[in-house]
Amino acid sequence: MNDDASGQSSGQQRPQGLLRDRFTGEPNAVMERINASIDFDQRLYAHDIAASRAHCNMLVAQQIIPEADGHKILKGLDQIEAEIAGREFVFTPALEDIHMHIEVRLTEIIGEAGGRLHTARSRNDQVATDFRLWVRDAVDDSRNALKSLQEALLSRAQEHAATVMPGFTHLQSAQPVTLGHHLLAYFEMFDRDRSRLADCRKRLNRSPLGAGALAGTSIPVDREMTAAALSFDGACANSMDAVADRDFAVEFLACLSLCAVHLSRLGEEIVLWSTAQFGFITLPDTLATGSSMMPQKKNPDAAELVRGKAGRVIGDLSTLLILMKGLPLTYSKDMQEDKEPTFDAVDSISLCIAAMTAMIAEMAVNISAMEDAAGRGYATATDLADWLVKELSLSFRQAHQVTAQIVRIAESRNIALEDVPLTEMQEIKPGINSGVLDVLSVRQSVESRTSLGGTAPQRVREAIDEARQRLAAT
Amino acid sequence: MNDDASGQSSGQQRPQGLLRDRFTGEPNAVMERINASIDFDQRLYAHDIAASRAHCNMLVAQQIIPEADGHKILKGLDQIEAEIAGREFVFTPALEDIHMHIEVRLTEIIGEAGGRLHTARSRNDQVATDFRLWVRDAVDDSRNALKSLQEALLSRAQEHAATVMPGFTHLQSAQPVTLGHHLLAYFEMFDRDRSRLADCRKRLNRSPLGAGALAGTSIPVDREMTAAALSFDGACANSMDAVADRDFAVEFLACLSLCAVHLSRLGEEIVLWSTAQFGFITLPDTLATGSSMMPQKKNPDAAELVRGKAGRVIGDLSTLLILMKGLPLTYSKDMQEDKEPTFDAVDSISLCIAAMTAMIAEMAVNISAMEDAAGRGYATATDLADWLVKELSLSFRQAHQVTAQIVRIAESRNIALEDVPLTEMQEIKPGINSGVLDVLSVRQSVESRTSLGGTAPQRVREAIDEARQRLAAT
Amino acid sequence: MNDDASGQSSGQQRPQGLLRDRFTGEPNAVMERINASIDFDQRLYAHDIAASRAHCNMLVAQQIIPEADGHKILKGLDQIEAEIAGREFVFTPALEDIHMHIEVRLTEIIGEAGGRLHTARSRNDQVATDFRLWVRDAVDDSRNALKSLQEALLSRAQEHAATVMPGFTHLQSAQPVTLGHHLLAYFEMFDRDRSRLADCRKRLNRSPLGAGALAGTSIPVDREMTAAALSFDGACANSMDAVADRDFAVEFLACLSLCAVHLSRLGEEIVLWSTAQFGFITLPDTLATGSSMMPQKKNPDAAELVRGKAGRVIGDLSTLLILMKGLPLTYSKDMQEDKEPTFDAVDSISLCIAAMTAMIAEMAVNISAMEDAAGRGYATATDLADWLVKELSLSFRQAHQVTAQIVRIAESRNIALEDVPLTEMQEIKPGINSGVLDVLSVRQSVESRTSLGGTAPQRVREAIDEARQRLAAT
Amino acid sequence: MNDDASGQSSGQQRPQGLLRDRFTGEPNAVMERINASIDFDQRLYAHDIAASRAHCNMLVAQQIIPEADGHKILKGLDQIEAEIAGREFVFTPALEDIHMHIEVRLTEIIGEAGGRLHTARSRNDQVATDFRLWVRDAVDDSRNALKSLQEALLSRAQEHAATVMPGFTHLQSAQPVTLGHHLLAYFEMFDRDRSRLADCRKRLNRSPLGAGALAGTSIPVDREMTAAALSFDGACANSMDAVADRDFAVEFLACLSLCAVHLSRLGEEIVLWSTAQFGFITLPDTLATGSSMMPQKKNPDAAELVRGKAGRVIGDLSTLLILMKGLPLTYSKDMQEDKEPTFDAVDSISLCIAAMTAMIAEMAVNISAMEDAAGRGYATATDLADWLVKELSLSFRQAHQVTAQIVRIAESRNIALEDVPLTEMQEIKPGINSGVLDVLSVRQSVESRTSLGGTAPQRVREAIDEARQRLAAT
Repeated sequence: MNDDASGQSSGQQRPQGLLRDRFTGEPNAVMERINASIDFDQRLYAHDIAASRAHCNMLVAQQIIPEADGHKILKGLDQIEAEIAGREFVFTPALEDIHMHIEVRLTEIIGEAGGRLHTARSRNDQVATDFRLWVRDAVDDSRNALKSLQEALLSRAQEHAATVMPGFTHLQSAQPVTLGHHLLAYFEMFDRDRSRLADCRKRLNRSPLGAGALAGTSIPVDREMTAAALSFDGACANSMDAVADRDFAVEFLACLSLCAVHLSRLGEEIVLWSTAQFGFITLPDTLATGSSMMPQKKNPDAAELVRGKAGRVIGDLSTLLILMKGLPLTYSKDMQEDKEPTFDAVDSISLCIAAMTAMIAEMAVNISAMEDAAGRGYATATDLADWLVKELSLSFRQAHQVTAQIVRIAESRNIALEDVPLTEMQEIKPGINSGVLDVLSVRQSVESRTSLGGTAPQRVREAIDEARQRLAAT
Repeated sequence: MNDDASGQSSGQQRPQGLLRDRFTGEPNAVMERINASIDFDQRLYAHDIAASRAHCNMLVAQQIIPEADGHKILKGLDQIEAEIAGREFVFTPALEDIHMHIEVRLTEIIGEAGGRLHTARSRNDQVATDFRLWVRDAVDDSRNALKSLQEALLSRAQEHAATVMPGFTHLQSAQPVTLGHHLLAYFEMFDRDRSRLADCRKRLNRSPLGAGALAGTSIPVDREMTAAALSFDGACANSMDAVADRDFAVEFLACLSLCAVHLSRLGEEIVLWSTAQFGFITLPDTLATGSSMMPQKKNPDAAELVRGKAGRVIGDLSTLLILMKGLPLTYSKDMQEDKEPTFDAVDSISLCIAAMTAMIAEMAVNISAMEDAAGRGYATATDLADWLVKELSLSFRQAHQVTAQIVRIAESRNIALEDVPLTEMQEIKPGINSGVLDVLSVRQSVESRTSLGGTAPQRVREAIDEARQRLAAT
Repeated sequence: MNDDASGQSSGQQRPQGLLRDRFTGEPNAVMERINASIDFDQRLYAHDIAASRAHCNMLVAQQIIPEADGHKILKGLDQIEAEIAGREFVFTPALEDIHMHIEVRLTEIIGEAGGRLHTARSRNDQVATDFRLWVRDAVDDSRNALKSLQEALLSRAQEHAATVMPGFTHLQSAQPVTLGHHLLAYFEMFDRDRSRLADCRKRLNRSPLGAGALAGTSIPVDREMTAAALSFDGACANSMDAVADRDFAVEFLACLSLCAVHLSRLGEEIVLWSTAQFGFITLPDTLATGSSMMPQKKNPDAAELVRGKAGRVIGDLSTLLILMKGLPLTYSKDMQEDKEPTFDAVDSISLCIAAMTAMIAEMAVNISAMEDAAGRGYATATDLADWLVKELSLSFRQAHQVTAQIVRIAESRNIALEDVPLTEMQEIKPGINSGVLDVLSVRQSVESRTSLGGTAPQRVREAIDEARQRLAAT
Repeated sequence: MNDDASGQSSGQQRPQGLLRDRFTGEPNAVMERINASIDFDQRLYAHDIAASRAHCNMLVAQQIIPEADGHKILKGLDQIEAEIAGREFVFTPALEDIHMHIEVRLTEIIGEAGGRLHTARSRNDQVATDFRLWVRDAVDDSRNALKSLQEALLSRAQEHAATVMPGFTHLQSAQPVTLGHHLLAYFEMFDRDRSRLADCRKRLNRSPLGAGALAGTSIPVDREMTAAALSFDGACANSMDAVADRDFAVEFLACLSLCAVHLSRLGEEIVLWSTAQFGFITLPDTLATGSSMMPQKKNPDAAELVRGKAGRVIGDLSTLLILMKGLPLTYSKDMQEDKEPTFDAVDSISLCIAAMTAMIAEMAVNISAMEDAAGRGYATATDLADWLVKELSLSFRQAHQVTAQIVRIAESRNIALEDVPLTEMQEIKPGINSGVLDVLSVRQSVESRTSLGGTAPQRVREAIDEARQRLAAT
């Protein structure tokens, strides 16, 4: 992607030679290789053509170019779009970037009129516009993909609103929770991701078109008209900023990086839960790989790749931030490096979301393994202490001491808390009665956590309802 | 900062020993060193106390603790706050983190009642709440600081709405612009930064308090009441997410990273503009450093540091993203590492914004050097071509060819475009008339760029007015 | 740390004012804050004084300064070193950096002669020298710390050369290995780390002293003499490179980042192995934290922090690389930002190595839990197939098919491979005889892996011997 | 790239189905997409075939497979290599990775014997071997490319050993240097890069082949034989480390990142020097781009891209470090993500070195512009002070004061230092004589800097000779 290779109102049919008018000799071979962007920026073709249509219509409406030329241009663009979509279009490094390819082809098809399209437009505002449009589509695609993942989470959460499992801190069992509650935590993360992407879109959605090379133009363009035609919310307020800014890509990659981190956390859990040691879930054969020699093996490759690709998306964000750091205004050629990390991050995240949606939807849950694990390790000791506070009005220091003593009895005999005889509990603290047994099972524990956002199944079901409404609304 | 070192409803007066009840022996010395966070998390003290006040009032209102105890707790907290603010408070690594320090001190002051504060609260939701409150303040401070910088930019832009300078692409002079216009580009960047921070604040502003260790609580807390008391917009919807989430810090650092990049771009320009070679500005002595041996030197240290510190803020963001990648739910101790990069980024950016505000406000502009530079290099060749298109209805190909020929004449004689005799221009293209001279001076060029967001001084002044309104409104 | 604040041969007793000779007014307050480095660069004091001693001796030897002045300088430096070490020295932001503090104090103590120390020296080569010396010490400290960790690994590997555990791929049990073998894998990683650090030291170990501000000096210094006095291998070959280079810090942080990654992998394993689900190890109480309410909990905080801090070290490396990117020669003030990430990485890694050494040395190994896990999941299916190839000369395709059939029998009855009756095996493949039973137990499997570097206990013991020799030699 | 999809001694002709023996149904479409690596790992084909040849010869020599089968295998591999090189080979995502493609094709060509190649080899050690071989080639290529760049630098340094230019600190002119000296600073940086790469190669050069899936093998392989055949220095000492290690790639990318930073610094200088404001150099037309509308423009695109691509290489390094952080032993699928960042960094850096070599070799130096700039700004004030110290035995404080006074006189009259009348100098300091004039010109200044590594032309020429010898030797 070159930048101001054309001036604000550049000529039609720009073969490489034209840009190099006063230059002697051909570009160095390595120059051509380092400079060409056609290998990756052809992904912008549809957005380039869309922006050209809007620009053309505006030029006609403002009587800057004749209506007849406008018609020819639109027809030519239709043909080029069909050629590229149909894979009939020939790309060549000599024409450097997608914009040059389309320009040259347009003039081939419609002749002299093709050049009029570039009135009051520079490569700088053109590239900025195309790339914004591409990123905007990618934002929308990401949000939709996340929505599917959230739906999968809600569906499985509904199914497992009351399935008890250990809640972990430090990967040590801490207190029992339900799987539905656990999955809803991820719903919240992805919901913030979607919210962030929506904010990113809002900021992105201003049109650079008409900013020219950097200074604006003396030709009476109507920037609001092209902005509206391309569904922008308005025009960028400052022409220099319009061509020098890549915030929209950086912010987008920051959103994707955080989303990738969320996916990696869930990926890690799927890897853990799939081990023989945890045994909480089984991935379907269609989402695992095997080994020709170790028939027992079912590897959670997709979950590992989701986890690993987070590194890549974070790396892409770093690349973009480093790229822009310290660049003076306005366009510098460094900025051509903005596209590949963006494309790479989008491709990675889109694959990760799709893979995760499939895994969530299709993993088999080993309910009894989860519930067994939840019951081990005196996970309801907190409930016992809470009961002492609530029922016997103990202070916390006292409640804690009593609990610790009872846990020690259970530990020494290797029995569960609820299996410590009531009489022995009463020896430690006289007022304890059979009511305490209600809080010592993992199921009772879970059901008691009825605070707002808590893990009690009834709360989880309410949370699912609320989540469905939120999802529908945003 | 330890995590679930207390359970959901932890005991009062928790000396280190209590947490280690069943442990034999003291912690290893290296364990104490790697574990302690008091060196840095004491910065959270005011937020910890504020959250405790809100929690205490709720416990009283919900009749979970006696009103008398509530009064004592509030009084004790007041005293502790005064002690810390007055630097009378003694910190010790043995008490590990700020929360433990305050807890232990509270019980020292008010006795047994101190323990009641921790009813229905875990270290996990407490830390998450404190840190959110701290980040929220930092968001607000950053936005205010940026506002001052934007005001400085507007003020200098007003002053230099018509000061002509070269507009650069590739650091090569491209088309003339005004300094006011150039400065407004940065106004836009910082405005997006403020907008991003506002969105970050909106998402951050949910209360984790009441999420307990991870599962919620069976004690009848009113999470909306504490949320409101702390000016949150509501409570986090899922208790596991509430304690496992550090999105707010990551998003904040992503905002600051992009802001740092903007500052680094302006820093780079100040460094360039201060060189003997550019000579566009002179920094005041108060914002430069000298050299004892090279009396001519005036080094733009602050601008360089602003540029350099962008690397640091980006590094902090990376640290945080890497930290959270692949962590299973809910709290893992790794997350204790969330604070230092956040504090470092905030300290860095706040220094950078203050330094930049001072430099923008106080730099002396060398108007004639700027204007001279703008006039060199046939920067108005584009204007000539545009004139040919508009006045003589040339196609762009023709306009370009004519312009190139005229530029070559000027180049060969080493004269400005406007000094090429009209007759010679007419030899190249007969219709050219003296009207063309109107577009060949840099001043005319600048004034002609009247498109929306363009560099024409009248447009710049309108843009300043619009910017002032935006600034006042957001 | 300012840079060329003094010229090549700067004046004695440089109060801030002197550097600002021709400047009007005091520095802006924010300027002072952003500029001062004394808060962190005081860590360089011993290296600054060492370098000054070497420089002073050289100046005397070359008859550039009088011997008497040399004596005074050395005495003054001794006193200053004692004052700083004894915490009697007063630091003040007004004197900006450690170099200025020492200079000013030297002249206070010995008068005019203090100024002669700075003959033929600039702040630029001075800072570069001090920082190299500091990093060199840190390299040596890191290597020594790693050596202790390697010794701990060897000691535990010896103890567990024959302790069988599952070898994992994808965190799924793949083939049995021994714990000793597993620990030796980390020995290799840390050995490469030490080797990398040694190479870094070799490249670092050139002296910048005498490079002056950037151009060298006209005063007849002997750079080889100061280099030798400071145990450098020689002088930097190019004076501009000498002051503009921070490769040594970047390379060092790259070494530490990779080391941190290794530590994080081991940290992750300790976290996993400590879970109830794996149950492979138990950390001693002195290296774990508890919870006041959940007496069963023993959290592997140190292992988690080791894992988390890897993010920080990688972030520090990023910071430094970003900092240096795109800086023109020679010194730019951005480079003052080189020290804090370096210090932070060193502090982090040193804590991590110490914590890891303690955990490795003191973790209790649950041998039977490991061996039980190794036996589950038909982990010796590969051994069966290998037996078929070796003993019955089957092709691999055939061997695989036979094995798969036998595994299916075992799976369907939920029995171990070695419990499938020989007659049933023979129905599938007639030649199978009782010799096959020798390869089906995990212990036999492990013992058969006698290839170079393999997991057979005898191989592991040989590897330990070889490792001990390597460790002693490097 | 799949991992242990085959066991240690996997079957021949492995169609996808075989690996999925006990699985029901085909892999999910997204699973296939996320899992396949053939799009990028086909770059490993030559290394995969080379490793297979070595493995085959060893199997024959150890009498593990019949000699006749060995002959067939080698012939088959020759044919496959020719097919891929000749672009006749058909790749398909269904066969996932390059290893599977070659295996399946081998059995197609030579039948059953093809399966014997995989005796005593797993996908894990195979991939690790192939990737090491690829990286080793890339290390060698990078070193050679850097050598060419260093030669170009030496050649231009020779030409400009005495060309005077300003030496900058803070991008402010500080002291005069020669262009040759400046270029040699980059020679040193790239020399360290080559040295680092050599060290990386040394550590990389151990063979993982024979490590099996992770545990070694019971088949009597000769690992030293295959290591020698592949020009490795020996075999990896630990089989688990052999398959779990990607240090060689991380270290390589760390080397390339630092090299990219060096290139970016030179890129920045070329951008600056090419500006109208500096005007120090002119890039040839073959290494610049123009603008159709701004005929005066010659943009240094290649230099900007070199600068920008540094961000990308640093991003690739981050990706790899993040990827490996926290992975338990041994192979995890995340590690499939190791190749793309490595390939991307290699491609980027190779382009950057080639472009930089061309720019250095072909840039036109504007000698008079450089020399003029060097003379401005009293850049020889340091020389004056040094003269006072050396000739009049002034202390530095005094020397500095005298110099400052003389500079003020010159400044007030806007004349050069050497144009201040001697009598006026003597009024300030009586002893000053005409000898002082010898040190006041930039040329004299440069020539006086004869310290080791200094900028005096004679020193620069010696340094070039020494550099040539170093380059020839390493």
